[in-house]
Amino acid sequence: MPKPPKQVFVCNQARPPNHPRGSCQGKGGNEILQAFWGQLQARNLWEKFAVTNSGCLGPCDSGPNVLVYPEGIMYGGVTKEDVAAIIDEHLLGDQVVERLKVPESVW
Amino acid sequence: MPKPPKQVFVCNQARPPNHPRGSCQGKGGNEILQAFWGQLQARNLWEKFAVTNSGCLGPCDSGPNVLVYPEGIMYGGVTKEDVAAIIDEHLLGDQVVERLKVPESVW
Repeated sequence: MPKPPKQVFVCNQARPPNHPRGSCQGKGGNEILQAFWGQLQARNLWEKFAVTNSGCLGPCDSGPNVLVYPEGIMYGGVTKEDVAAIIDEHLLGDQVVERLKVPESVW
Repeated sequence: MPKPPKQVFVCNQARPPNHPRGSCQGKGGNEILQAFWGQLQARNLWEKFAVTNSGCLGPCDSGPNVLVYPEGIMYGGVTKEDVAAIIDEHLLGDQVVERLKVPESVW
């Protein structure tokens, strides 16, 4: 696997039901991850970016969280419906998806 | 949590015993992760870098793998004894630890 131009980390941290911090997995992390992996494969985008599941990225309240490097852009409240926008606008088009970006106070 | 200057992803992917690809967890991923988290806390380095566990980073043969962003530097064959060098030389000193860096053919 050559070094990808961009790498997406999708938080899929789990916590027990009713845990006060909640969790990205509890808010749909798995679905988001599957949507990224699904489009990566269906659209043959392996040379454009990599997608990796991760543990807690920090701002649990803003989750589900998706982090894109090397830019270090954190998206919050992501749904599986947002995945195509992150791919098309940011990962392929190099434009940050401002509507999904968490505030600077958060990250 | 403010955006950290650097972020370390430690692969902690698990696979069943005797799986042909092996796994970073099977080769000590947990110990490496605990060493990073332990030093982060003991040395109060929260403002310098973040440490996150991750799923498979790709080059399983080279594992246990540790990936540092925003530089996108992949270290392979890492042991818990190497953690202090990665922290002191790279995360704090901004010098890549060349002896641990995977070859360009790998990443």
